[in-house]
Amino acid sequence: MFQQSTGMFVAETHTEAVTWFFTIEKFIVEGKTQYQEYQIAEVPRFGKTLFLDYNIQTSLLDEHVFHECMSQPAMVLHPNPKKMAVCGGGEGATLREALRHNTVTEAVMIDIDEELIDMAKVHMPEWHQGAFDDPRTTLIFADARKTLEGMKGHGFDVILSDLTNPHEAGPALYLFTKEYYQICADALSDDGIFAMQAGCANANYPELFACNIATLEAMKDVFPYVRGYTGMVTTFMMPWGFVLASKKYDPLALAEEEIARRFAQRGVATRYYTPRYHQAVFTLPDYLLEAVQAHGRVLTDEHPYVWTA
Amino acid sequence: MFQQSTGMFVAETHTEAVTWFFTIEKFIVEGKTQYQEYQIAEVPRFGKTLFLDYNIQTSLLDEHVFHECMSQPAMVLHPNPKKMAVCGGGEGATLREALRHNTVTEAVMIDIDEELIDMAKVHMPEWHQGAFDDPRTTLIFADARKTLEGMKGHGFDVILSDLTNPHEAGPALYLFTKEYYQICADALSDDGIFAMQAGCANANYPELFACNIATLEAMKDVFPYVRGYTGMVTTFMMPWGFVLASKKYDPLALAEEEIARRFAQRGVATRYYTPRYHQAVFTLPDYLLEAVQAHGRVLTDEHPYVWTA
Amino acid sequence: MFQQSTGMFVAETHTEAVTWFFTIEKFIVEGKTQYQEYQIAEVPRFGKTLFLDYNIQTSLLDEHVFHECMSQPAMVLHPNPKKMAVCGGGEGATLREALRHNTVTEAVMIDIDEELIDMAKVHMPEWHQGAFDDPRTTLIFADARKTLEGMKGHGFDVILSDLTNPHEAGPALYLFTKEYYQICADALSDDGIFAMQAGCANANYPELFACNIATLEAMKDVFPYVRGYTGMVTTFMMPWGFVLASKKYDPLALAEEEIARRFAQRGVATRYYTPRYHQAVFTLPDYLLEAVQAHGRVLTDEHPYVWTA
Amino acid sequence: MFQQSTGMFVAETHTEAVTWFFTIEKFIVEGKTQYQEYQIAEVPRFGKTLFLDYNIQTSLLDEHVFHECMSQPAMVLHPNPKKMAVCGGGEGATLREALRHNTVTEAVMIDIDEELIDMAKVHMPEWHQGAFDDPRTTLIFADARKTLEGMKGHGFDVILSDLTNPHEAGPALYLFTKEYYQICADALSDDGIFAMQAGCANANYPELFACNIATLEAMKDVFPYVRGYTGMVTTFMMPWGFVLASKKYDPLALAEEEIARRFAQRGVATRYYTPRYHQAVFTLPDYLLEAVQAHGRVLTDEHPYVWTA
Repeated sequence: MFQQSTGMFVAETHTEAVTWFFTIEKFIVEGKTQYQEYQIAEVPRFGKTLFLDYNIQTSLLDEHVFHECMSQPAMVLHPNPKKMAVCGGGEGATLREALRHNTVTEAVMIDIDEELIDMAKVHMPEWHQGAFDDPRTTLIFADARKTLEGMKGHGFDVILSDLTNPHEAGPALYLFTKEYYQICADALSDDGIFAMQAGCANANYPELFACNIATLEAMKDVFPYVRGYTGMVTTFMMPWGFVLASKKYDPLALAEEEIARRFAQRGVATRYYTPRYHQAVFTLPDYLLEAVQAHGRVLTDEHPYVWTA
Repeated sequence: MFQQSTGMFVAETHTEAVTWFFTIEKFIVEGKTQYQEYQIAEVPRFGKTLFLDYNIQTSLLDEHVFHECMSQPAMVLHPNPKKMAVCGGGEGATLREALRHNTVTEAVMIDIDEELIDMAKVHMPEWHQGAFDDPRTTLIFADARKTLEGMKGHGFDVILSDLTNPHEAGPALYLFTKEYYQICADALSDDGIFAMQAGCANANYPELFACNIATLEAMKDVFPYVRGYTGMVTTFMMPWGFVLASKKYDPLALAEEEIARRFAQRGVATRYYTPRYHQAVFTLPDYLLEAVQAHGRVLTDEHPYVWTA
Repeated sequence: MFQQSTGMFVAETHTEAVTWFFTIEKFIVEGKTQYQEYQIAEVPRFGKTLFLDYNIQTSLLDEHVFHECMSQPAMVLHPNPKKMAVCGGGEGATLREALRHNTVTEAVMIDIDEELIDMAKVHMPEWHQGAFDDPRTTLIFADARKTLEGMKGHGFDVILSDLTNPHEAGPALYLFTKEYYQICADALSDDGIFAMQAGCANANYPELFACNIATLEAMKDVFPYVRGYTGMVTTFMMPWGFVLASKKYDPLALAEEEIARRFAQRGVATRYYTPRYHQAVFTLPDYLLEAVQAHGRVLTDEHPYVWTA
Repeated sequence: MFQQSTGMFVAETHTEAVTWFFTIEKFIVEGKTQYQEYQIAEVPRFGKTLFLDYNIQTSLLDEHVFHECMSQPAMVLHPNPKKMAVCGGGEGATLREALRHNTVTEAVMIDIDEELIDMAKVHMPEWHQGAFDDPRTTLIFADARKTLEGMKGHGFDVILSDLTNPHEAGPALYLFTKEYYQICADALSDDGIFAMQAGCANANYPELFACNIATLEAMKDVFPYVRGYTGMVTTFMMPWGFVLASKKYDPLALAEEEIARRFAQRGVATRYYTPRYHQAVFTLPDYLLEAVQAHGRVLTDEHPYVWTA
């Protein structure tokens, strides 16, 4: 009945309730950049998997779930996305998803961790699939907030904020605040769309997700349409939360047929965020609506959210 | 950066990919019945939690998610459920949810493990909430399959199959087969509805869920409407799969407003499976549809599904 | 090749290098006193085992190793031990070993944690074996240091200090200092002997042991003979360190035959600390002698040792 | 009070009682030979550490303890060791210890795993310290038993058997049997000495050690002097067992002064097995003597010992 462990494991603590020990068949590469420690490893069933600071980040089992959710709802919502930006997005898969839209002429990716991206270029081709070398791509190694601040009025159609969680000492602490979202708004065009990864969306730790919704909802003058949505990321063992904030278009008003039409027209194929599934993705369970009521507060530079899960 | 464990843990292996170590603040009661070992413990954030054979079963954090999904879609789909049965359902919470419908006059619960239910009566009042003592309840300690076989033609309006997974040596191995589902059909009325817990619904281990859908879909002459659905059970760290098989009514044709009307009329209130959320619950992601194609086979007594996760 | 954990475990961190997960077959009793949390559990091969604050304390596999080492070298070294004291010693096994000497007329045990001893009386009979009920025993629930301070000149022949390690917030922080050892000396007779549990004696964490030797060696005017010794405690997965400090008798001068003679005369039988093994027990490996040189400092109330392993 | 794991770990199960999770700061190299999987990693406090098949093998913290015990008692016992052999001994440290004796003219090392030794040459210089390149060394990649069988009458003065434990499917299953020990005896000179690593010497799993002692003691006509001894290997979290079997010289008759004289004369310096500590090393605790009585049986090719810890 009892069984004991033998082998290699990466352990991640997800709240006080549970620790996950991922079985490692083989470490492919390990290292440390200025900002984080990383491992790429083979995990049974998950396949090639990236860990950052001993937090599971993405695996071949379902990286498309996260990256489609990160990219496609905003991209397809815009009727003609030409200029777009990715903030963060290290492995290049969010960029890859955006570039699928043949309307795109300019894709700017701003990530602070050049060493990590150099590593991803070599060891994670399944993720970027050449996106870094796309002629439409401009790669900037810098702080995304500062860079976007300097691009006020640039008129991006879509900005995707695919950042690591706001750890106390991490580089993303002030990239989950109202001030940052305003900077994004200022760099967007008049019908621009912002989408972000926004934290856990399970019943155990929905606080950051709730706060991001509350913060963007408090900016209704800038973003009249703010919609939380989720994608079930098996690699994370939970649904993940995203928020889409839009100046002009409401994703809830986008019909399945129109999504299908735009995907077809732009040469986009998806596996998780499909036209049929759009409505389900944007329907939050009551526990998340309740979490917004219970825990949602406006995040500011003065009082940012500090991630502890 | 590194941190090490100190304390008490219950470890559960979920496929070769990952082992979960649940932090235990306190063991409330432990023991062993003829069929299984059990622990009730306090887990941080999850609250009171039941483990059976070192598999997490249910916690106060979100037991309502599982038990509403187990009970409410079938109950509300029937226009006037009077006679209903629960197969398995140890803690009494599936029964509790069914009894919320004031239409019910007869609720039969058939569970093989009397010792476990005796324990639950004492230590899990938050789950049963008195359901065992409801005058409409008849509790039978026996094998559910054999018992239902003897109730052919009884005319249940709803049968809910809330059984432990089909472990090789477990009591439920032959309660996930076509023959068992036929026995359930024979005990149902002409417009009867069957619903079952059907296994993991994440991308890692969807095989049992896929097979249950395939098996019931192969019984279209008996159950014209077979619908898979899921509920996000944070305690299980994944969405859980259920299948509803219906002789006359199609849950996809049930409007949000009608669900709300029936709930109001029958005095039912829910927290997760709400009228608004009905459609989302019954919309499966593509990876589950693909799993049915890839892994779905008809389960029979000769070739049952053997659970290994 | 890989194997994963299933079951119940108590985890203990032993330095940054390693965490031990003890397999628990069954928890017998758990609770919390004013001073510590405790579990008594069945561990495979170890048998009944006590954990205090998630540190393994003693198991039936080899509790005799620790308790004989704690008690017998000092007891047998004294030619006629009549009055003796145990400081700490919760489970009663150190007391039990001392009482084996039929010379003893007065055995005082001073332990701060009455609740723990009440629990041990009920649940750990294999350890105390009735020692608490011996007519020669006086049980005092109080701080050992304060109590001994009030017994200056009492003339104990032997004092055994069997205390929990000096955790920062624990009750024993100032019971591993020169001031405390002086209090013990003052309560001893002119040919009295002091012995103590003194910490890990492996190559990984020998610092506390080294400091205790250094501290008592710095009291040569009080204790001319200071001898470190070890016992291999399999339950701790390491040799454990003890120090004997003596006013008149040198254990290294005690011949195997004399030990055997005294044991026979006093009705004492041992399993680990046998006459034949006396010399081996008192022969420290070079790494411990080197640790005394490298890490040994005099512990004082102002600069006590703070345990971190 | 509770703490949870974060980071990388290698887990090793040591009997049903306990699982060790070693904290890994960094993996230096990993791979797989025909015979075993290996990792070299940095472990806090232990330093560079080798794992084979997820069993900790040796670390810089105290590799000298194991390798001195493996080599020095036999080497120093022989009055003039010229020809010697190491069976197994992958990392080259047992060879290194033997070569310290300037009397040696021929050192044959026979190890089946060429890939592992190639790896050790590059990544474990702290262990071999150039021993593989010593002009006196002959390295043979082959099965040690078969090779020695072909060297009958070669007249080795010392043979050191430093093999992996006899796992069921491992290459060393028949290198812990009477037949193998006889082959060693036949390859030794008339005053030759055999020494072997013989398994755990803690109270939890002493069975293999006991059987090796019993087996060699049953060969009194070949080896009149058979002596078990131990070294405290902190890396293994237990004392390790060795057996020395000698045709002419008895290690118990070797005086501390004579060991010191021989070491000085031959240019040998040791850190753990020092002249002063010789007697302690050869004094077994009663639990091991009892284990020989209780568990000791003669190991044969027909009934070998199968390692399970």
